[in-house]
Amino acid sequence: MEGVKVFPLKIIRTPNGEVKHALKASDDSYLGFGEAYFSSVYFGAIKGWKKHTQMILNLIVPIGEIKFTIFDDRVGSESFGKYFSIVLGEGNYQRLCISPNLWVAFEGIGRGENTLLNMASIEHNPDEALNMDLNNTSFSYPR
Amino acid sequence: MEGVKVFPLKIIRTPNGEVKHALKASDDSYLGFGEAYFSSVYFGAIKGWKKHTQMILNLIVPIGEIKFTIFDDRVGSESFGKYFSIVLGEGNYQRLCISPNLWVAFEGIGRGENTLLNMASIEHNPDEALNMDLNNTSFSYPR
Repeated sequence: MEGVKVFPLKIIRTPNGEVKHALKASDDSYLGFGEAYFSSVYFGAIKGWKKHTQMILNLIVPIGEIKFTIFDDRVGSESFGKYFSIVLGEGNYQRLCISPNLWVAFEGIGRGENTLLNMASIEHNPDEALNMDLNNTSFSYPR
Repeated sequence: MEGVKVFPLKIIRTPNGEVKHALKASDDSYLGFGEAYFSSVYFGAIKGWKKHTQMILNLIVPIGEIKFTIFDDRVGSESFGKYFSIVLGEGNYQRLCISPNLWVAFEGIGRGENTLLNMASIEHNPDEALNMDLNNTSFSYPR
């Protein structure tokens, strides 16, 4: 999908516990630091739809498994009207980078804790985020 | 301890799962972004001693409980020769900011997964980190 990229991340196993990479300032895809925060989603729960008009999201799932679904309603985009889905977690440890102006929802897939880290390009600001019901008639969440 | 600060962080509960703050670029204590990585430590396992000569550590524990122990061998420091310990995790959700040149060890306290996020001021560079045996004769890890 236009404006969506995934970057593989390293997991380094040691006798006392793993080290998992998340983001480096020298990464080609690094576009500035605004805020880091965690968001957890219970098994079977879904957060979304939300669209940021300015924030670039960098989503990493260090615990559990989360399914991300993105919908593109940007007129003129190559992926206009399309959905994109990916499950991230220990079995598919990657960073999901999402441009502004895409609708994003995420669902808890693991039966334990499911937590993402967002390394956001700007600080949280409710004025640049829009919310939409998952079951809206234009682009309902695909189940 | 001189060069060690803790900053309370917000946890926001929602019906679908929590949001936990970690770090904002506008925080007074924000001193630049170099790299974000996770480090897990098994129950009863200890990682350390390690001393960074340049990196400022910003440690947050979103999962489990981790006990951090710091030893100060900086000649002329007010806390020279002293230990400092703190347990962080969901029950004490704070950001631990540690200046360079302090020895740090951390121990898994929770029986499940114990994971920290380090929002480091510079990227990982083995040339600026020193390691020391936990049981060295100068400053053994306090058990």
